[in-house]
Amino acid sequence: MLLDETARGVFVISVTPFTEDGSLDLDSTDRLVDFYREKGATGLTVLGMMGEAPKLTADESAAFVQRVLDRAGSDLPVVVGVSAPGFAAMKELSDRVMQMGAAGVMVAPPSALRTDQQLYGYFTGVADVIGADVPFVLQDFPLATSVQMSADLIIRIIRDVPSCVMLKHEDWPGLAKIDALRAAGRKDGLRRISILAGNGGMFLPEELRRGSDGAMTGFGYPEMMADVQAAHDRGDTDRAQDLFDAYLPLARYEQQPGLGLALRKAILARRGAIASAHARRPAPKLSPADMADIEFLITRQERRLKELN
Amino acid sequence: MLLDETARGVFVISVTPFTEDGSLDLDSTDRLVDFYREKGATGLTVLGMMGEAPKLTADESAAFVQRVLDRAGSDLPVVVGVSAPGFAAMKELSDRVMQMGAAGVMVAPPSALRTDQQLYGYFTGVADVIGADVPFVLQDFPLATSVQMSADLIIRIIRDVPSCVMLKHEDWPGLAKIDALRAAGRKDGLRRISILAGNGGMFLPEELRRGSDGAMTGFGYPEMMADVQAAHDRGDTDRAQDLFDAYLPLARYEQQPGLGLALRKAILARRGAIASAHARRPAPKLSPADMADIEFLITRQERRLKELN
Amino acid sequence: MLLDETARGVFVISVTPFTEDGSLDLDSTDRLVDFYREKGATGLTVLGMMGEAPKLTADESAAFVQRVLDRAGSDLPVVVGVSAPGFAAMKELSDRVMQMGAAGVMVAPPSALRTDQQLYGYFTGVADVIGADVPFVLQDFPLATSVQMSADLIIRIIRDVPSCVMLKHEDWPGLAKIDALRAAGRKDGLRRISILAGNGGMFLPEELRRGSDGAMTGFGYPEMMADVQAAHDRGDTDRAQDLFDAYLPLARYEQQPGLGLALRKAILARRGAIASAHARRPAPKLSPADMADIEFLITRQERRLKELN
Amino acid sequence: MLLDETARGVFVISVTPFTEDGSLDLDSTDRLVDFYREKGATGLTVLGMMGEAPKLTADESAAFVQRVLDRAGSDLPVVVGVSAPGFAAMKELSDRVMQMGAAGVMVAPPSALRTDQQLYGYFTGVADVIGADVPFVLQDFPLATSVQMSADLIIRIIRDVPSCVMLKHEDWPGLAKIDALRAAGRKDGLRRISILAGNGGMFLPEELRRGSDGAMTGFGYPEMMADVQAAHDRGDTDRAQDLFDAYLPLARYEQQPGLGLALRKAILARRGAIASAHARRPAPKLSPADMADIEFLITRQERRLKELN
Repeated sequence: MLLDETARGVFVISVTPFTEDGSLDLDSTDRLVDFYREKGATGLTVLGMMGEAPKLTADESAAFVQRVLDRAGSDLPVVVGVSAPGFAAMKELSDRVMQMGAAGVMVAPPSALRTDQQLYGYFTGVADVIGADVPFVLQDFPLATSVQMSADLIIRIIRDVPSCVMLKHEDWPGLAKIDALRAAGRKDGLRRISILAGNGGMFLPEELRRGSDGAMTGFGYPEMMADVQAAHDRGDTDRAQDLFDAYLPLARYEQQPGLGLALRKAILARRGAIASAHARRPAPKLSPADMADIEFLITRQERRLKELN
Repeated sequence: MLLDETARGVFVISVTPFTEDGSLDLDSTDRLVDFYREKGATGLTVLGMMGEAPKLTADESAAFVQRVLDRAGSDLPVVVGVSAPGFAAMKELSDRVMQMGAAGVMVAPPSALRTDQQLYGYFTGVADVIGADVPFVLQDFPLATSVQMSADLIIRIIRDVPSCVMLKHEDWPGLAKIDALRAAGRKDGLRRISILAGNGGMFLPEELRRGSDGAMTGFGYPEMMADVQAAHDRGDTDRAQDLFDAYLPLARYEQQPGLGLALRKAILARRGAIASAHARRPAPKLSPADMADIEFLITRQERRLKELN
Repeated sequence: MLLDETARGVFVISVTPFTEDGSLDLDSTDRLVDFYREKGATGLTVLGMMGEAPKLTADESAAFVQRVLDRAGSDLPVVVGVSAPGFAAMKELSDRVMQMGAAGVMVAPPSALRTDQQLYGYFTGVADVIGADVPFVLQDFPLATSVQMSADLIIRIIRDVPSCVMLKHEDWPGLAKIDALRAAGRKDGLRRISILAGNGGMFLPEELRRGSDGAMTGFGYPEMMADVQAAHDRGDTDRAQDLFDAYLPLARYEQQPGLGLALRKAILARRGAIASAHARRPAPKLSPADMADIEFLITRQERRLKELN
Repeated sequence: MLLDETARGVFVISVTPFTEDGSLDLDSTDRLVDFYREKGATGLTVLGMMGEAPKLTADESAAFVQRVLDRAGSDLPVVVGVSAPGFAAMKELSDRVMQMGAAGVMVAPPSALRTDQQLYGYFTGVADVIGADVPFVLQDFPLATSVQMSADLIIRIIRDVPSCVMLKHEDWPGLAKIDALRAAGRKDGLRRISILAGNGGMFLPEELRRGSDGAMTGFGYPEMMADVQAAHDRGDTDRAQDLFDAYLPLARYEQQPGLGLALRKAILARRGAIASAHARRPAPKLSPADMADIEFLITRQERRLKELN
């Protein structure tokens, strides 16, 4: 089951669960995959650049990916982040995870690249190195990479690199970029690839209206994204926005740079999706005031959702 | 009327109004000052770094500040941004606006500074240059300046620089920093300065709960900030959050980097606060889809506010 | 006398002289212009982004530019830096200095711009705003601006913007970029514009061999650049490199980021070109050890130059 | 043989040799270690952040480090770079290489860190995680990491973290920082750690005069650094500078950002130290003009060195 241009829905960016003592928690990994599936995930993404994947050793990475793939089974495609400073390491990781059963890989540009020329060269090189038969997700995430990719450039890549089948759209929020890519499809016959939105879903309703196919991101309540998209797909724009608005105060809170991952893990642990909110060092710690904010927002969120049902 | 440590409430970061042909619109300036006052502003801030102040000529800046000061009168203190690459230009501007009647000035660190040593040296230098009798606002805005200021450093500045009377708190959202500054007041007797929150008010309820004294930022609906703070001050935390939540979808939308100023001006023009949403070049343009998003969000916001009343 | 594509030689980036008490030193300005002329300057550049121009008030800027223009007279073209956050201020400054007699203006891209699309839009906008009759220098200085401009992009600008007559080439050192621009001239008939090298002349011999037309930069010994270019023009590559090598230890020392301007002023004051090495705050200070290093290097440089003559 | 505060001399930052087809070249690794030793290396550093180490797979890294350690034997201490996004991976790598026989490890701060508070916390955490018995080199390299570390901060780390035994000084050139650290030793009894200079040796004479103990960097002619230091140690400052000046034109050329590694490998291949100059993708390519520049500079360098002997 390989990823292709028709992918849609919610690809949850998975956290990496640890036990309280900091070791990889493979039991929680099973539980987490089940949780994501129950809450509406149509796919999973692991070893993304913002999670704790860089804090795993090579052996742990392999064990974690294997466990996720085993649990995800044949109906939940798994994308694996393979961004790396060199093509050799990228190829090695890509080869390994594709053999293990990944649906595709995801690549973000190195932050030293700036010009269209450099970036075009990089992504044609990526496709060449990992192999034309490996579908890949282009991760456009300027806030993290400092790399800005214009619509023109992405259009060139889509045109010339058939194995680029999805854009993880994490420009903030870059609605005009979705407009431009979809217009290029309508006017110039550009191949229509999948566009999944990032940024914790903070602009999901607008992104869906502009032509995105769902979300690839990691809010602690993934059902928000699934439910918003379902309402959107039914044409019920107001319902989609009502649901979105109900989750927005918490989604906003979880999106705090630096603190975001700790908050997400605290929410997932509170929901029973993982056994511990432990994050590997170096990591920020939540204060009692942070925990109180989460409780306050979750209580209100539940009340608001009840009002809406 | 000079700014001091007791300042609280909503200091709106003012936009700079232009006519459709791009010239400075002084009539709209009057209207805008009145609008901000009616919507609950307790102060104004002009020539901030994120607005269009850098797009004014020196003469236009002076004319605009004068007009704002004249209209603001004696009951609405006006803070003027004087950040500059060199101390000579900073001093000249600071002297001029203080003579014109400004309540204080605001300074952000140059983006080349990094270490505590450099930043401490910079702000003691600022105080020395503009004069110990000129109260100043320390602008802590890492997303724009790339400069991160630790709580330790800010505490040192508060301790050693009496003319620093306010922190414009725009770390994103840096709730722990407010905690640390207020704890230093309680435990170590640190002088209590005013802390006003930025970031478009996106974390206002939390910031108020941690000990901020209000907001200094620029959302197109400044009454949100005034009303949230009023409810907070009455101890009605839920009401504060209800109001906040009602405005949040639009506040979030307006906070899009790059596009934010254009969105804010479009909202202010729609509300009649300024005659034209024109922004000086180089500036992004809003698309019909962007305008439709704004309409959709405002309609919903009005409905939700009615439900709450 | 307007700048055009045939410009060559050494356009010295002028420092801004101050007296010991920090006021603008217009007498030294005369002396400095004479000094630069005597040492081989074929043009001057003022109000550049790395000098102390941003530390001048608006009135001081005007007075300084006027004085330089008066002294430079009709045979020494003067380029004025007009980079500004907004087009209104850029146009105002450009109009004023062109009326005062400047030969052209220089513009660097704002550091927020990244993609080819953004940068192309910016520079076509610049040409439009300052007027098609005002020749401008495109300043390509990634180390200072964080903006990387590909050869492709610069070629598009040269092709579409006739008033862009010169590239201040300060990519570090970006020899391949000069190759690409000159090749585009030979192969595709691209208009040949003037390319003057920056970076304190640290790569001048190589840049001349690749097709640059001289230097626009600010080493305290501008005769190095004039003499190296003269030898290069005579075809005496070894002599060019001998001269270059003799100055290189000091040129390297002067190029220290942060400290560079203070070092250059110390050297110019030592040579009598300006009355004081004073730099406006905030500015680094030279230590006795720094001054000893300069003395040591200058003594050796003089000895080596004698050996070469 | 563990690294300690008395380390001095030239620790060459080793390149990673590949064959023409891109596979790891272990035979050349032996030859390279011998070459470095013959040219005066008193130590080696591998898996540094600027080399091609990030382009190795985990297995290749282990094989390469093992080969270097085997060849280096008991008289040439080897430092291994272990910078990593997470402490788990850092600890794993550090444990492994120390067991294999490394003399110590080197750590650079992650580029997201900015404040003294963050950096102090990071390096105390590093020492804790890798173990107090593992000597480590603090790598201060702002140009690559964007992290600026003040002298104050480094002094605090030296004071509180006994396993920090060396500073790889790569601030550019930051001579005042060496002054401050050595002054803190004289005045405040600060533990004297080893300071080795980086930046391709471009400021080696000055750094030695300020109190550095040698160099840890990677110029293709490591004998430059050994010979300059030997002359300096004899008190022959002029001879040290003469030798330095002879190599400077090439050293400067090799230091071109982006191109530097390709140039260094070309020089090492030309000298027979490695079989191929191949660099793993993504990597810049040298043009015939670049190769001609190298030839020209090497020919002149050899001539000048003969004149000096």
